[in-house]
Amino acid sequence: MNTEIWKEPVTISSFDVGASGCLEPTYLMKHLQEAAAKHAIVLGVGFEELKKDNIFWALTHLQVEIERWPLMMEQVTVETWPRNIQKLYTTRDFLVKDKSDNILIRASSAWIMVDISRKRPVRPYDRLQNKPFVPAIMALGDFPTTLNRIPDNIKLTEHRRQVVYSDLDINHHVNNTRYMEWLMDAIDPTNIEITSFNLHFSNEFRKGEAVNIKTGKPNTDTNHLIFEIEHQSTGKTGCSGEIYFKPIQQ
Amino acid sequence: MNTEIWKEPVTISSFDVGASGCLEPTYLMKHLQEAAAKHAIVLGVGFEELKKDNIFWALTHLQVEIERWPLMMEQVTVETWPRNIQKLYTTRDFLVKDKSDNILIRASSAWIMVDISRKRPVRPYDRLQNKPFVPAIMALGDFPTTLNRIPDNIKLTEHRRQVVYSDLDINHHVNNTRYMEWLMDAIDPTNIEITSFNLHFSNEFRKGEAVNIKTGKPNTDTNHLIFEIEHQSTGKTGCSGEIYFKPIQQ
Repeated sequence: MNTEIWKEPVTISSFDVGASGCLEPTYLMKHLQEAAAKHAIVLGVGFEELKKDNIFWALTHLQVEIERWPLMMEQVTVETWPRNIQKLYTTRDFLVKDKSDNILIRASSAWIMVDISRKRPVRPYDRLQNKPFVPAIMALGDFPTTLNRIPDNIKLTEHRRQVVYSDLDINHHVNNTRYMEWLMDAIDPTNIEITSFNLHFSNEFRKGEAVNIKTGKPNTDTNHLIFEIEHQSTGKTGCSGEIYFKPIQQ
Repeated sequence: MNTEIWKEPVTISSFDVGASGCLEPTYLMKHLQEAAAKHAIVLGVGFEELKKDNIFWALTHLQVEIERWPLMMEQVTVETWPRNIQKLYTTRDFLVKDKSDNILIRASSAWIMVDISRKRPVRPYDRLQNKPFVPAIMALGDFPTTLNRIPDNIKLTEHRRQVVYSDLDINHHVNNTRYMEWLMDAIDPTNIEITSFNLHFSNEFRKGEAVNIKTGKPNTDTNHLIFEIEHQSTGKTGCSGEIYFKPIQQ
């Protein structure tokens, strides 16, 4: 079996679809990460395997470009492959295709391996040197685009919330898919369609923490929104990102 | 193919599992309803089919008893079958079984068909008379147990929240699985394991609405919690329910 490119069939369930009537960004992130997790298991570097050495995969960057959001009950295929090792980062790309093999969504991600006991990243090369990387096929660029700091002159809107039980995953951290949900709830995307988003994950959140979600538009003319999700107690950034969108004609 | 009892294989994903390390109630509800929806399609009374006549299925009662919560990556089977027509209600039962065919979870649900244009229930008999009901097999009782009104002498704790974008489903209503999530966030179930829950859904919520979640213990000695989720503006109950649980030894 060719395991270089993993192909995961996914039927978009009614629960993957929100008020937009299409797959929601949060649930897209889940499907991408679920496909990545399954592929990692097959490649011998899955959750359970790495856990034996106290090592976990941590997603640091995720860049996504959407051609068309899948509809409820639509059958799509998530294709994913590890692309490269770049210093401490391992890059992994994704394509979501429809039944006619049209590309609906392109994504690129970067991950680090973290030694939980030592609380520091592990160099991935030793564990991954014999794995089937596919550097020649790029879904987007060579590495997820890095984000600029939010310029000081931009007016930011603040939205506050608290980390609750349902935000947590098995590791008792806020699952990264929740950040996109927090952003959606803060901006209320009822009249927009997201055409791309780019996220950078830094400091994790834990239960009970107060969260500041700061959003702003670098240019009032463009459909571009930048945001930072901050730990209220320390001011540290937990997740930063940006989205591009287009208005929906209603 | 025998379509009387639908058997849906489900692998518990990392996203179905929360801080408990096991399948979370919210995601159990999703899997039950997803299996029911697929079975309804096969039986010719699925979402798209009924929508042609402006009719929707609405879940009114859900009673669940848990023997053991499935673990992450565990492969289970959701079995479901329509059991009976009882006046305006159609009952549907569920069993969740592990790989060795042990019953992990039993559930019983009641549904009404609602004519959205007329905003009233439709008698289900005409549409369902030739369908393969299985009245002889009961997962729990004959009908989901009805709930008593909360006695006046019980001290209730109030938790407030607002309906946000991510609470909504394709119909722009709060999806019923969210009520269980709201309850989990209100009570913080970190040190308990839910052994059964029983929900009754009445008045739906819409975006921006203020929500009151009232919880209380009928008897301080027992591991039994009752709750009502109220529309703050009208005082109407949107969802009422109860859970039984056991403490987790940590």
